[in-house]
Amino acid sequence: MYFKINKKEFYDALVTVSRAISNYSPLPAFSGIKFEVSNNDICLIGSDSDISIKTNLVKNEHNNLEIFKTGSIVIEAKYILDIVRKIDSELIEIEILDGCTTKISGNKSEYKINGMYANEYPSLDFSPCESSFNMKSNILKTIIHETTFATSEKETKPVLSGVNFSCIDNRLVCVATDSYRLSKKIVEIDNKLTFDITIPAKGLNEVMKSLDKQEEVKISLSNKKIQFVLNNVMIQTRLIDGIYPDTSKLIPNSFEYVLTLDSKEILSAIDRISFIKTDGVSVIRLNLTTNECILSSKSKEVGSAIEELSTASYEGDSLEISFNGKYVFDALKVIKSQLVSISFNGEMKPFIIKSIDDDNLIQLVLPVRTYA
Amino acid sequence: MYFKINKKEFYDALVTVSRAISNYSPLPAFSGIKFEVSNNDICLIGSDSDISIKTNLVKNEHNNLEIFKTGSIVIEAKYILDIVRKIDSELIEIEILDGCTTKISGNKSEYKINGMYANEYPSLDFSPCESSFNMKSNILKTIIHETTFATSEKETKPVLSGVNFSCIDNRLVCVATDSYRLSKKIVEIDNKLTFDITIPAKGLNEVMKSLDKQEEVKISLSNKKIQFVLNNVMIQTRLIDGIYPDTSKLIPNSFEYVLTLDSKEILSAIDRISFIKTDGVSVIRLNLTTNECILSSKSKEVGSAIEELSTASYEGDSLEISFNGKYVFDALKVIKSQLVSISFNGEMKPFIIKSIDDDNLIQLVLPVRTYA
Repeated sequence: MYFKINKKEFYDALVTVSRAISNYSPLPAFSGIKFEVSNNDICLIGSDSDISIKTNLVKNEHNNLEIFKTGSIVIEAKYILDIVRKIDSELIEIEILDGCTTKISGNKSEYKINGMYANEYPSLDFSPCESSFNMKSNILKTIIHETTFATSEKETKPVLSGVNFSCIDNRLVCVATDSYRLSKKIVEIDNKLTFDITIPAKGLNEVMKSLDKQEEVKISLSNKKIQFVLNNVMIQTRLIDGIYPDTSKLIPNSFEYVLTLDSKEILSAIDRISFIKTDGVSVIRLNLTTNECILSSKSKEVGSAIEELSTASYEGDSLEISFNGKYVFDALKVIKSQLVSISFNGEMKPFIIKSIDDDNLIQLVLPVRTYA
Repeated sequence: MYFKINKKEFYDALVTVSRAISNYSPLPAFSGIKFEVSNNDICLIGSDSDISIKTNLVKNEHNNLEIFKTGSIVIEAKYILDIVRKIDSELIEIEILDGCTTKISGNKSEYKINGMYANEYPSLDFSPCESSFNMKSNILKTIIHETTFATSEKETKPVLSGVNFSCIDNRLVCVATDSYRLSKKIVEIDNKLTFDITIPAKGLNEVMKSLDKQEEVKISLSNKKIQFVLNNVMIQTRLIDGIYPDTSKLIPNSFEYVLTLDSKEILSAIDRISFIKTDGVSVIRLNLTTNECILSSKSKEVGSAIEELSTASYEGDSLEISFNGKYVFDALKVIKSQLVSISFNGEMKPFIIKSIDDDNLIQLVLPVRTYA
């Protein structure tokens, strides 16, 4: 293996595939980046076995790629990233000397790094899946942003650590819940498909980091894996086994009380009073009358706080309801519009939060029973 | 206690005194800020018992201070900082209600925080010291920046965890060493004084954070404590007991080999090859001849690296010397000038690093014995 390439283009590709690499991989080979150099291109692979990222570098006008000799090797990600990032040279040469020793050189710098044989790297199946559809990267990014935060971090119910993507015809429904709150996003896709899969939140967050441009993403899936292909990068993640709970009947159709208010005002009020915690949780009480909207919080240890929301407009009888401040804060934070509505059916019933002019993103939060 | 004040001015004062507060204070009262409100001013105090910071807020055109009632209280630093930072109000009112309950209010927000009685706060002695001199804040900042990094982090020799300030007449010598490297700075002061004290590096670093403007700092000292007074802020720190080692004879007067080179070039070369470590230490070998200046590093596990320094100019016979890359890197980093000289007396003798045109900052590094 021997090639020469532009430093910046090469570094960007290394960063892309290294996103899949975990510092805590049980398998030593997975702490490395796999290089596969053929006559026409360089294929780089990073993986933690659940998520794998693959990119191909083909000769183009920017990368000055010249391949002198084919071959393959695995090089520790942190070393190759550090060397390529810091090297003071526009072009970099990489050459396997003998066995696993790999020379990386540019300008007045020369490094010889002990690599690993490519056959020590587990074989990963990047074969294409049957079903596929296309989506604009900004839409995919929005879906991920609006749902993953509501997944469960506990390992007791693995299926809740992912976002459920279910599709009938062109209607894709994306749901995340940790069983105390739920986020549901509906989008139209360009292909008539039927599937019901659950994608690990971790994988989706990695996908989000790679999405920065306005581009088309090709999404292919089977019942075992999902692939996101953008430009010359493929991100593949395993799916979570198990049946996702039926959440379709959780969201009420009618409400007794509706509060409309400025999203920023309630967000900063919750932010201000959330320092008052009991057992690590900030429980916030909302007192609603037609004249007033008051948020309050108290704890024996710290003290108490009261915030009046002046932009609120409320329909319904007086209501007092308590909730986990973090859940409502998280829900409001992903809503882009200025005006939001919070709709209730009583003190102990789940309530929903949404933008007043968008029914495609609906969030549900369970109230908290309090002492008062 | 009851007063009203401008939010921003008040917040800045809270941040200043809270710098002295440690999250790990053994005494609960030290996690709070002490308020002492008299008819004319508000005195705020933060301390971890070693370092104490005190500031006085007097009525002025910016702070809109109005004092309605005198009194004193201690309020948990993290709560008062969080509330004042986030509150959406230009003016803030603070009032002790009954006992220790303190009301903090502004605009539509109202908080009642459980404080602590002021008499639970340890009494701190801010009485003035006998000797004092003045120094421009930028000079003090430079001294701290150029020395504290070389102090020892080990607790075995407490005196080495501080910077020694010794003065005869107007000549102040500031020395820091961890016994493997040493940094020595000489400055003139405006007063004829004789003293020999060791200031904890931690205290000096706190002082540095408070120095941002071009202003005069009054430095007062006794054999127990040192006070830095700038504007209306006093930072006081305890001194370290014990006799500081005599370092005056460590720096050689003549050298057999002198290397002159561009500081940035060697800094980035050391930075690049420092990822090669043996037992956590990056040992770097320097090979000098009249034609070449080569840095290299190797480890069995990782591999090897070679860097050629093209700006180097060297006088003397060929020399090979090894050193801890971090020590030389740290020393070069605080030197501001472009051209630096490194002067040697042989493979196993300490060498010195300095700017080619400034003899007031001299750094000494011990070499490392290597396998090769």
